[in-house]
Amino acid sequence: MALKVYGHRVSQPSRAVMIFCKVNGIEFEEITIDLSKKQHKTPEFKEINPMGQVPAIVHDDFKLFESHAVLTYLACAFPGVTDHWYPADLRKRAKVQSVLDWHHSTLRRGSVTYVINAKLAPVFGQPLNPQAAAEGEKILTCALSTIESIWLQDSGKFLLGADQPSLADLSLVCEIMQLHLLEENDRNRLLGPYKKVQQWIEDTKTTTNPHFDELHGAVFQFGAMLNKQQ
Amino acid sequence: MALKVYGHRVSQPSRAVMIFCKVNGIEFEEITIDLSKKQHKTPEFKEINPMGQVPAIVHDDFKLFESHAVLTYLACAFPGVTDHWYPADLRKRAKVQSVLDWHHSTLRRGSVTYVINAKLAPVFGQPLNPQAAAEGEKILTCALSTIESIWLQDSGKFLLGADQPSLADLSLVCEIMQLHLLEENDRNRLLGPYKKVQQWIEDTKTTTNPHFDELHGAVFQFGAMLNKQQ
Repeated sequence: MALKVYGHRVSQPSRAVMIFCKVNGIEFEEITIDLSKKQHKTPEFKEINPMGQVPAIVHDDFKLFESHAVLTYLACAFPGVTDHWYPADLRKRAKVQSVLDWHHSTLRRGSVTYVINAKLAPVFGQPLNPQAAAEGEKILTCALSTIESIWLQDSGKFLLGADQPSLADLSLVCEIMQLHLLEENDRNRLLGPYKKVQQWIEDTKTTTNPHFDELHGAVFQFGAMLNKQQ
Repeated sequence: MALKVYGHRVSQPSRAVMIFCKVNGIEFEEITIDLSKKQHKTPEFKEINPMGQVPAIVHDDFKLFESHAVLTYLACAFPGVTDHWYPADLRKRAKVQSVLDWHHSTLRRGSVTYVINAKLAPVFGQPLNPQAAAEGEKILTCALSTIESIWLQDSGKFLLGADQPSLADLSLVCEIMQLHLLEENDRNRLLGPYKKVQQWIEDTKTTTNPHFDELHGAVFQFGAMLNKQQ
């Protein structure tokens, strides 16, 4: 069965999907959608995802988008995926799903709002917006604090006290890695207070390497370029 | 197996969970968390949901929150639930999941931001915020337009061209019903351009009545009271 992943390595949910495939030995064709050339807004790409966003997949003739829906689909559709990613046990699965759902309006919203308004806006021809950045930072730090004090428990290295990562660990860590587009001192200021979060990022990286580092190369490069320019 | 649903009928995701249970004959004890008395922020309730939000469930000794995670759990845990709510077919299920995921940063964000800043803020002792309301309206109308032109297809009455509703129809329609807290002319202004959306709301209501109307009584009452006061 042929799987195509349409994405861009600077997009955090695109990386989560591609790392998941590589870690689980799911073969796929990576089709880069160049966001800087607005390829995600072309009629051709909108045939794949009418929302004009990455990532999206085509599995044989089946088209799907929204990265969490894609990840849960892949975890169920490919038999070789280890159970810890998306447990078959109904209650364990529901807990993973609750973290994935929580993510949207909290960590993701805060991180995206902050990074765009504090750093990325000029890339899109927009001015920086300190007020919007401050609002984003508030949501982001609240989310990091919730991960530190609620989602990460003492019983295990990963979210929900698990010994091995789930789709939620991968999605949330890829989101936080987007802070590598910021200058180092700004990233350290944001993440510094959250020691358990920092260790969890390292543990997720270690468990999914070499694929984690390979997929994040584009973010480190783009971040370095941005910080050199500005 | 004893199921408790902690919620408030003025909360749109609480209504979605309770309507789902009633339509599918899932017995539950409704425990009202009085939001006006901040019962959702008490230490007792945070034992159920540390995020301090409704809805949450306790099924025997299993605690769960985030309404979409709750809905998908209930659809799988109770054998009497008809397949169309959350199809067993992997690809159909993934499509429902993609609508549920899409909802968070689009319709829900726009609707909540608009309703709070254009109407509800004084209830919480805050001033109305026209600028934030305008931003919310922009996100809300974009989401309604996407439902009208992409998620609702000509082949069926419900989202994704289905003949019967899924969890996504219920969650999204309950969100839109929150606009009944607004004055009628403002609600009509927002929904007026979207004829397919209006018909879909009616179809979802008809398919889930009498429970839909029963659970929405609190919203109509609260809306009437707000509009009389202001």
